[in-house]
Amino acid sequence: MNYFSSDFKLGILGGGQLGKMLLSDTRKFDIQTYVLDPSDEAPCKIACDHFFKGDLMNFETVYNFGKLVDVLTFEIELVNLEALAKLEEEGLKVYPSPKTLKLIQNKGIQKDFYIQHSIPTANYKRFPNLKSVVVDILDSKLKLPFVWKCTEFGYDGNGVKVIRQISDLDNLANVECIAEEMIPFKNELAVIVCRNPSGDIKTYPVVEMEFHPEANQVEYVICPARIDDKVSEKARAIALTVSEKFNHVGLLAVEMFQTEDDEIIVNEVAPRPHNSGHYSIEASYTSQFENHLRAILNLPLGKTDSKVAGIMVNLVGESGFSGNVIYENIEKILGWDGVTPHIYGKKQTRPFRKMGHVTIINENISEARRIAEDVKNTIRVISDKLNN
Amino acid sequence: MNYFSSDFKLGILGGGQLGKMLLSDTRKFDIQTYVLDPSDEAPCKIACDHFFKGDLMNFETVYNFGKLVDVLTFEIELVNLEALAKLEEEGLKVYPSPKTLKLIQNKGIQKDFYIQHSIPTANYKRFPNLKSVVVDILDSKLKLPFVWKCTEFGYDGNGVKVIRQISDLDNLANVECIAEEMIPFKNELAVIVCRNPSGDIKTYPVVEMEFHPEANQVEYVICPARIDDKVSEKARAIALTVSEKFNHVGLLAVEMFQTEDDEIIVNEVAPRPHNSGHYSIEASYTSQFENHLRAILNLPLGKTDSKVAGIMVNLVGESGFSGNVIYENIEKILGWDGVTPHIYGKKQTRPFRKMGHVTIINENISEARRIAEDVKNTIRVISDKLNN
Repeated sequence: MNYFSSDFKLGILGGGQLGKMLLSDTRKFDIQTYVLDPSDEAPCKIACDHFFKGDLMNFETVYNFGKLVDVLTFEIELVNLEALAKLEEEGLKVYPSPKTLKLIQNKGIQKDFYIQHSIPTANYKRFPNLKSVVVDILDSKLKLPFVWKCTEFGYDGNGVKVIRQISDLDNLANVECIAEEMIPFKNELAVIVCRNPSGDIKTYPVVEMEFHPEANQVEYVICPARIDDKVSEKARAIALTVSEKFNHVGLLAVEMFQTEDDEIIVNEVAPRPHNSGHYSIEASYTSQFENHLRAILNLPLGKTDSKVAGIMVNLVGESGFSGNVIYENIEKILGWDGVTPHIYGKKQTRPFRKMGHVTIINENISEARRIAEDVKNTIRVISDKLNN
Repeated sequence: MNYFSSDFKLGILGGGQLGKMLLSDTRKFDIQTYVLDPSDEAPCKIACDHFFKGDLMNFETVYNFGKLVDVLTFEIELVNLEALAKLEEEGLKVYPSPKTLKLIQNKGIQKDFYIQHSIPTANYKRFPNLKSVVVDILDSKLKLPFVWKCTEFGYDGNGVKVIRQISDLDNLANVECIAEEMIPFKNELAVIVCRNPSGDIKTYPVVEMEFHPEANQVEYVICPARIDDKVSEKARAIALTVSEKFNHVGLLAVEMFQTEDDEIIVNEVAPRPHNSGHYSIEASYTSQFENHLRAILNLPLGKTDSKVAGIMVNLVGESGFSGNVIYENIEKILGWDGVTPHIYGKKQTRPFRKMGHVTIINENISEARRIAEDVKNTIRVISDKLNN
């Protein structure tokens, strides 16, 4: 197959920042791209060859879009599965496969899958709605505290909440959900696995999510994780097993916990480029985006080793600001060695909206961590207007 | 000045591969771009915000385009200087300045400039046309052999020829030119300097152009150059002097010869991202394109050190093939560690047309060199049709 400067067409469902960073590599290889997204202001609108506006959950829209391309992928899981399944049935290459996506899209099904394949994961119980969770607590069938997760449509911390008392359930949506045992953990880790249809498979190094000690929010994604080699090896091995069981093509980001006893248990997966792999653009021999592209086109996978240590800091909209975005002090952080901001192209900021990220690379991981903290304390995503 | 996700507009004259690689960084920072190019099939047509088709040498076209933007730069020197000068006069930020470009665009003026500023360069003589060169040879005022260069519109080896006998002048254009003394040299080197309007200045490491032993064509650009540290330091110092004398803003690629006596003499310069800096996308902390952007926006310059050794191989159209391009064996080279092809997006190949390049990175420069040779011997830029 001739992909380069040819008539070949790659379709991407979703036109957000992940797609935008993927387009950087389709451009590098001059691969023709078609993008579908509901928003006229999608970050992918420029840099793709053809942009289509439409609903990713609508069967007809996704099906008709798929008919235009030779290979179809997605940068967001919330897409119409039935359309993907029909397209695949009709012979279109859809990567990752809708069969894989079906096992992942719903967190209840995903958890059942881990149990079925003896993949270590936290204990859980599935519930059809919030009401039945309350009933179980009152009947003492469910012990507090636990982690509540809605099974679908959750993202970026939405749809996940620690429940310590019944009143913590107030204001949660009355939807299908799971209650998961709270696991005390030392570290939250992630491993990105890439795999092509020929079965070539590679893992990226283990990364570590460092949390803010008080706010309990991920502040830094650090590569390599500052953990024991044995724990790293175990995490990579488990990630490989998860990938094999899902039989996925493309990238699979496997999020895991390292328990107090150095056990590794799987939290959840994402079948696409992932926030925990953004550091790879600057730090790795091959970025996660290029490897996603190589994988879905059944090209050989690129080397996943790092050239230098990499740390990523998310840029989210500052609380209290909504409106035209201003990246305060961005000139300042650009003056520091190895600091690269990525601006996703959203013109409007809102509190906690993901607006970009900053990568810090350095030969020395401690030095990178020091600069990352300075970056975090210096740049602010604000706007020309304070919230009412 | 707020450049990021704002109303700020950057104009780029020329929409070729250099512009395309620059757009990769304007996208990363979400800086709005306007591009002018004569071709509807320019590699920059997608990924810029607004594309305009027009003649870069036409005063009105360039002037009117310049009126639309806040900062204007170019990725090709062959642009209408008068329009740039008028725009600058009227207050537009044009980087590099037309004053600098004027000293570079014509090779005769460029050579005079070196002499005037005591910058070491090969001896030369300026001629208004080819006929007067012949007269000088016949009058024994000009000794054979020498290097003929047309003063304007030469590029990629066009417009340069070694003259060993009068008949070598046959078929050369009867245009303004220079005759330059042939300098026996050990190495052809280059240093890229970047400088912003505040006067921040940084040099990239010295790179070495390795020639094919028989064909006398550059085969590999190697970073760092495999030369003595003292020679490297001298080359960087001379490049800095050249940059200061030109008082340029943006990038300046300084091509130099290392003579048999380890003297450094300046060959020529280019006031823009340059083929000799393409390795920087993968190998450097900050690519030449990002640093060009930082420089012309008066942002702090990024670190120019390398993370790993880098070697670049140009991809040019194979002799004998014209038509729809095919990159033969590209899947094969993608299977080797640290190998990244860049495909410029030209759909049609022609003999010797620059179609792309491949970067090879490795911790070990000898290993990189070995892989580069394999790349060179493996990939071929052909087409579905043989030439008549």
